[in-house]
Amino acid sequence: MTSPTSRSAIIEADGGCLNSPASRPLQRYQSIRSWTETLCDPLIAEDYVVQSMPDASPAKWHLAHTTWFFETLLLVPHLPGYRPLESQYKVLFNSYYNTLGEQFTRSQRGLLSRPSVAEVIDYRHHVDQHMQALLADLGESPQGEILALLEVGLNHEQQHQELMLTDLKHMFSLNPLHPVYRPYSAAPSEAIAELAWHGFEENLHWIGTPVESSFDDSNADDSIAADSNAADSNFAYDNEGPRHRVFVEAFRIASRLITNGEYLEFMADDGYGRHELWLSDGWATVQEHGWRAPLYWRQEEDGWKSHTLGGLRPIHPEEPVCHVSLYEADAFARWKGARLPSEAEWEVAVAQLLGPGAAVGETADDANFVEDGFYHPRPLAAEATHGQFLGDVWEWTASAYSSYPGYRPPAGPLGEYNSKFMNNQTILRGGSCATPRSHIRSTYRNFFPPHIRWQFSGIRLAQDGMGR
Amino acid sequence: MTSPTSRSAIIEADGGCLNSPASRPLQRYQSIRSWTETLCDPLIAEDYVVQSMPDASPAKWHLAHTTWFFETLLLVPHLPGYRPLESQYKVLFNSYYNTLGEQFTRSQRGLLSRPSVAEVIDYRHHVDQHMQALLADLGESPQGEILALLEVGLNHEQQHQELMLTDLKHMFSLNPLHPVYRPYSAAPSEAIAELAWHGFEENLHWIGTPVESSFDDSNADDSIAADSNAADSNFAYDNEGPRHRVFVEAFRIASRLITNGEYLEFMADDGYGRHELWLSDGWATVQEHGWRAPLYWRQEEDGWKSHTLGGLRPIHPEEPVCHVSLYEADAFARWKGARLPSEAEWEVAVAQLLGPGAAVGETADDANFVEDGFYHPRPLAAEATHGQFLGDVWEWTASAYSSYPGYRPPAGPLGEYNSKFMNNQTILRGGSCATPRSHIRSTYRNFFPPHIRWQFSGIRLAQDGMGR
Amino acid sequence: MTSPTSRSAIIEADGGCLNSPASRPLQRYQSIRSWTETLCDPLIAEDYVVQSMPDASPAKWHLAHTTWFFETLLLVPHLPGYRPLESQYKVLFNSYYNTLGEQFTRSQRGLLSRPSVAEVIDYRHHVDQHMQALLADLGESPQGEILALLEVGLNHEQQHQELMLTDLKHMFSLNPLHPVYRPYSAAPSEAIAELAWHGFEENLHWIGTPVESSFDDSNADDSIAADSNAADSNFAYDNEGPRHRVFVEAFRIASRLITNGEYLEFMADDGYGRHELWLSDGWATVQEHGWRAPLYWRQEEDGWKSHTLGGLRPIHPEEPVCHVSLYEADAFARWKGARLPSEAEWEVAVAQLLGPGAAVGETADDANFVEDGFYHPRPLAAEATHGQFLGDVWEWTASAYSSYPGYRPPAGPLGEYNSKFMNNQTILRGGSCATPRSHIRSTYRNFFPPHIRWQFSGIRLAQDGMGR
Amino acid sequence: MTSPTSRSAIIEADGGCLNSPASRPLQRYQSIRSWTETLCDPLIAEDYVVQSMPDASPAKWHLAHTTWFFETLLLVPHLPGYRPLESQYKVLFNSYYNTLGEQFTRSQRGLLSRPSVAEVIDYRHHVDQHMQALLADLGESPQGEILALLEVGLNHEQQHQELMLTDLKHMFSLNPLHPVYRPYSAAPSEAIAELAWHGFEENLHWIGTPVESSFDDSNADDSIAADSNAADSNFAYDNEGPRHRVFVEAFRIASRLITNGEYLEFMADDGYGRHELWLSDGWATVQEHGWRAPLYWRQEEDGWKSHTLGGLRPIHPEEPVCHVSLYEADAFARWKGARLPSEAEWEVAVAQLLGPGAAVGETADDANFVEDGFYHPRPLAAEATHGQFLGDVWEWTASAYSSYPGYRPPAGPLGEYNSKFMNNQTILRGGSCATPRSHIRSTYRNFFPPHIRWQFSGIRLAQDGMGR
Repeated sequence: MTSPTSRSAIIEADGGCLNSPASRPLQRYQSIRSWTETLCDPLIAEDYVVQSMPDASPAKWHLAHTTWFFETLLLVPHLPGYRPLESQYKVLFNSYYNTLGEQFTRSQRGLLSRPSVAEVIDYRHHVDQHMQALLADLGESPQGEILALLEVGLNHEQQHQELMLTDLKHMFSLNPLHPVYRPYSAAPSEAIAELAWHGFEENLHWIGTPVESSFDDSNADDSIAADSNAADSNFAYDNEGPRHRVFVEAFRIASRLITNGEYLEFMADDGYGRHELWLSDGWATVQEHGWRAPLYWRQEEDGWKSHTLGGLRPIHPEEPVCHVSLYEADAFARWKGARLPSEAEWEVAVAQLLGPGAAVGETADDANFVEDGFYHPRPLAAEATHGQFLGDVWEWTASAYSSYPGYRPPAGPLGEYNSKFMNNQTILRGGSCATPRSHIRSTYRNFFPPHIRWQFSGIRLAQDGMGR
Repeated sequence: MTSPTSRSAIIEADGGCLNSPASRPLQRYQSIRSWTETLCDPLIAEDYVVQSMPDASPAKWHLAHTTWFFETLLLVPHLPGYRPLESQYKVLFNSYYNTLGEQFTRSQRGLLSRPSVAEVIDYRHHVDQHMQALLADLGESPQGEILALLEVGLNHEQQHQELMLTDLKHMFSLNPLHPVYRPYSAAPSEAIAELAWHGFEENLHWIGTPVESSFDDSNADDSIAADSNAADSNFAYDNEGPRHRVFVEAFRIASRLITNGEYLEFMADDGYGRHELWLSDGWATVQEHGWRAPLYWRQEEDGWKSHTLGGLRPIHPEEPVCHVSLYEADAFARWKGARLPSEAEWEVAVAQLLGPGAAVGETADDANFVEDGFYHPRPLAAEATHGQFLGDVWEWTASAYSSYPGYRPPAGPLGEYNSKFMNNQTILRGGSCATPRSHIRSTYRNFFPPHIRWQFSGIRLAQDGMGR
Repeated sequence: MTSPTSRSAIIEADGGCLNSPASRPLQRYQSIRSWTETLCDPLIAEDYVVQSMPDASPAKWHLAHTTWFFETLLLVPHLPGYRPLESQYKVLFNSYYNTLGEQFTRSQRGLLSRPSVAEVIDYRHHVDQHMQALLADLGESPQGEILALLEVGLNHEQQHQELMLTDLKHMFSLNPLHPVYRPYSAAPSEAIAELAWHGFEENLHWIGTPVESSFDDSNADDSIAADSNAADSNFAYDNEGPRHRVFVEAFRIASRLITNGEYLEFMADDGYGRHELWLSDGWATVQEHGWRAPLYWRQEEDGWKSHTLGGLRPIHPEEPVCHVSLYEADAFARWKGARLPSEAEWEVAVAQLLGPGAAVGETADDANFVEDGFYHPRPLAAEATHGQFLGDVWEWTASAYSSYPGYRPPAGPLGEYNSKFMNNQTILRGGSCATPRSHIRSTYRNFFPPHIRWQFSGIRLAQDGMGR
Repeated sequence: MTSPTSRSAIIEADGGCLNSPASRPLQRYQSIRSWTETLCDPLIAEDYVVQSMPDASPAKWHLAHTTWFFETLLLVPHLPGYRPLESQYKVLFNSYYNTLGEQFTRSQRGLLSRPSVAEVIDYRHHVDQHMQALLADLGESPQGEILALLEVGLNHEQQHQELMLTDLKHMFSLNPLHPVYRPYSAAPSEAIAELAWHGFEENLHWIGTPVESSFDDSNADDSIAADSNAADSNFAYDNEGPRHRVFVEAFRIASRLITNGEYLEFMADDGYGRHELWLSDGWATVQEHGWRAPLYWRQEEDGWKSHTLGGLRPIHPEEPVCHVSLYEADAFARWKGARLPSEAEWEVAVAQLLGPGAAVGETADDANFVEDGFYHPRPLAAEATHGQFLGDVWEWTASAYSSYPGYRPPAGPLGEYNSKFMNNQTILRGGSCATPRSHIRSTYRNFFPPHIRWQFSGIRLAQDGMGR
């Protein structure tokens, strides 16, 4: 965990299987699990301990919690004779599953120096060995259910890979020594294309996943196992369905993300000082925290700089603006005479622009995901075709997070995974430069409260009507 | 302001004009303004001063703020030579209109013993006299704009009539002397009908107001003035439009509100203690505040009682449950195997059940509005036809407050009236026993944060599918 | 309660008995009680309701709490057949006496519009009538105990007379309308004498009251009653004794209070910006609240002004500085190369300078107390002899509030009067322009936390050594 | 830093010089500095990072801050050509010295994973090498001043040795895994002597240090250097002087500390539930935090246990009670019909009982200090003569922390060391089981706010009068 890892090494370690829908469950398990540890390569023991704010968690906790997830949902119920490594972990590494018992106080995760990083790694290996045993010989186990749970666990691990990076970035940002996660060495930014608009006529559309959720135990049957190789490409979270109709008025959507350069114009035009651009809660938040720029930006004598996972870097006008709240995204859009897209508009646009088959991270070859090793959004390349809909930054939508018509939460603990958060949160779409490529699809619904900024969150504009 | 007022006296004072769409603007102005003061009859000077929580305002402030609204939006710009009575009121009684300048700190409204109640009443009369002058002879004024603004001002005053009552109720609830606003003397509750379901097939519907908003200055032209008598019945807030299409899956909606008796069953079944019934933020709120019953309920030796505007009264099982948060409404619905309706479902149902013409407060003869003098929700009478959709209690929906497709906020200060709150709020529909009858229509969108309970807010259930 | 009262009227109402040590108990009771109501003359009903901060109380509460004190400590135990007017008042108007049961939450005293002012006045009269009965015919009652409790009750009432004024001043200060309690019409300030020093040699001194505390029930015997006329002049609180020896090193003490003019020099010399002048907690407080001047000061275009009970007035350089915290007093002293006196130094100095007999408010004829009607500290008159040790402003000392050697708290509820606060508080000495003249003596120990500023608190300097 | 260290090894490492007044400055420097690192032996890297509450600091921070102290006060001004290792450390490791510039926010010390532990150790060694150079050849340096500063730095380091232990204990106490700092293996507790009283007649006493403080630069002259070997035994902090007279009434003081067994009786007698035993702020604190026992105590099925540096251990009735606040100490004393001693009483008693020469830690052979390796207070051995006045637990006094008569803070940064905290703090005396033996003397004044409990703080009683 101490030697730096080149990008090629990462891809090799991955064995190509992240991109392979035909991967066997165990290989896929090993590949995703080891990627988590690969992401820890640049860390020293001290880096694993800190919780820089209640919303974030120590890296150590991410490593252990994802392991707890497999232990609790797969090994304990399905591997005969399995015994948890340490009984206290049941509480220590339970995030928010009331169904699974008590939880150690979230805001105090950074007060625990023990278990040590080494002990947490031991815990991972302990669980990995038993997962190997479980997956190697499913025997008379309910294969469909196990593979369904496995898929949830792997997607869950991927979510925490991203969170671990965003949390490390936040922690390092508070340190006046400006620690660097990995040096950033991209080619110089190129000039990028003018923002154009894609228009869509009013219509009744189907949105949401067509997949019968593999998420719900009660839906899992062994027939799915017969086609287990395809499990990963078919996966969707419960909250992405049911597929249903929405009537969408004519709209247009921007051909690319908003850049730092455009955002600087907003700032220069006193965007943070003009109440009429802001939602009421947004304006109050701006006043309370004295926001004057995106998170991580600081104005120095030689211009605006930004804390990144590659250290403190000058702001590049061509790069997508990042680490803005919904409030800032919404105010920017208003300033620009536009608005944010609804999640239905976003999904309709992506399905039509990228094609239903192409609208998943694994096929968006030129999109900027975590495996690309930038850990930072990139300017849209002139020749790019994906329009930055996938990767780079999560895109705030105008939609509050709520259930789709006909949605029913899964029974059991996974009922708490998504459904209890359908309140006071806003939908973001498309994944980011910190998201694993195989984790994203066009129906994917991420959600955060409107004021948060430490995720890689940016802006895409929309407008009423098709335009010309 | 000290003599109690019987309901007949109120109706007389009202001159019948609240129910008359043909009322002349000035009459209508006088009628609504004097009703505000009628509502103050039971108060003593001390009652006008207190702000019992930051969400509430002193009665004195409501009286002055609504007056400020007319002064600022109508008299200052449109009555030549008008001078504000006291220059400090511009700041003191501005609620949240940044466009109109600074505001006295909201949470400190209860720290001001001056101006006195008498001075505030003087302020009201000063503005009333000048409004009379303005309305008596519109002369060469832009009549359409003035009448449009008048209508907004009157609807605004009606909103504050309701808020004044809910704020007084909250203040009295904190007083161990149990002050009574007005004694409650209703006939004993009758047994009420079983809860039944109205089913609706999936369909594409139009919802929202057909009225071109009279709210926006830029839309106001003098042609509206030509039919000024009808202005009030045609009024709608900006957020109720544009009229637009939504696809609504098949659903059914309950034939009446949930009663205290039904809610007591939820409580008896440990509804407040079962995490699986609650949204995450709701569960946290329940823990933080130790909620175990609706607001104002207290368990005494001889059973549950509730603080009401008629004093402390035993809970009547037949009465609609009231003063619950969205979280409680949602948890109750989940416990009952149901859910809350979306605002589109609610509006579709009301339009079909009551008929588009009937779905306004003024025609819902047997609905329980503020003029009925109960100030408390009533059991559904056996012979009633309105199904409690209007009046009694505001009904929490499952819909977050957001703009309708194609919505654009009005220019000027009224742009702040509704649109900047489209965030972190939940829609409630239908009006309450504290709402003026002429204020409500089926397209009316009320909104509050999901945790609030001091409004008269209750529960109506919905389910997927038509049933049967 | 609405007509303004001239100073002569006040003195007449007082019947001279405040200054008469020979007053009979009932006369004294009536005189002090009616003075409380006289102080309310300038108020309207709304003014009685507000609690402007948790440290302050509504005027209504002061009126009722002092009444509750007589009811609870005298009438209930000693007047046969007495019944409290309203059972809830036992809790509502108990301040902090755990011995006497539950208390209504202190910070919510301003949320109670009822009982009305009129009802509180009725409560006062109800108790006054019964006190009259009790005092008119002590019969076989334990006279010593009753007269001792009476004396405590009257001193308690006087303390609340002062607090009521400081609380009203604070409330009015938050109101942009600048309400005036009573117009201030003093002669123009005169130039005042240079600050000189009184030196004292090192010595062992007796300090504290020689009075066997009439405060403690267990000390009260009827022999005291035999000389009841003198009761008032002999009274001292429990915390003023026992009389005991302290060794005081040589010191000198300033001949007058620090003036606004001198304090302005401190401000001009960046006194609030120089950390080295401040105690650590003081510096933190200055940063947290952004203090830049005493409480109630505001800088306007035409210079510094101060909110007073006479309205907003320009700062007069000759007047004693007022409404400073201990932190400011201490920082000022450090800036001046001096320090604050210990309470022993203060008491030793006053005893020697004014003489033991003269060191009580009643004999300090030219000191500025509440009956003088200024409600504001006055410049030291050239001919004055008292050196402002009594009246004008409370003088912060360097002494933490603690018990004198051999002190034992009284048994019963009065044990809570003073002793439980001997922690985290600082001693102030000498009384203020809001203190009743008959309330003060040289052994009197007032105490407040070091950060408070809403009392009439000012600065007197001391230094090590006799000087010269 | 990983191998456990036996007590003999510690003493050896110490080279005996901690106990030797004849130690040369460099030896003394090396001995005390290396002892800090010895105390870290049981830690892993993760343990150094956490800040478990704002009052505590990460171990890493203690290691660096004490180093910064030498760098800033000695090397930068006195070692020609010295350059700080890393410029950011000036701010990062400044605790509260405004004179020395900005400080990193105290409450965020636990958010810094970097510098790593290894880097902090490098920093220590860097400074140690330069200190060696400075001390090895004082040459023409102002020896007196340097040696005086050295002594302050070493005493400062010793204070942080104790704080590091108390902070680690607090951090481990929050961890459900109950980490052990060092296993505790004491002989079983013996029965201890009855509590007796030492009586003292009323008298005028001298208290405070006779040492002309070596703390103040302006007092330092080279003549002190002439006897530099004795520097350590003569050291006193500025706040321990000037020596001065106090008149102390007759009193008696307990012959030993209060034990757990005695404290359990207080608890069993509802000590935490009886308001009359508590100071007002204490009672509020008890309610707010729900205190029912000393810090670190927990009631389990098989009795009360306590978190210690040796892990979770059963409560031993014979051991001194520890980790109580002043409020608890005061309430206990009141319950026992006693009181806490004033700091003058404590010092007078110790000087007479132990003898002026013996009243320093280095001569109290059987007192329990940190070098004894228990890290926990011990029952008073039957044959012990010191009465636990030194070591075991800090003893709360009844005295607020204030300056002695004639005290003047030193010029420069050291003026901030003690004097700016003379407010809102209470004096504790005598040192604890976590204090270095050579750090304590009878005039030593420790101070903490009255509510804190994480220091090793306990109870000694006193009473008025000599007793029989």
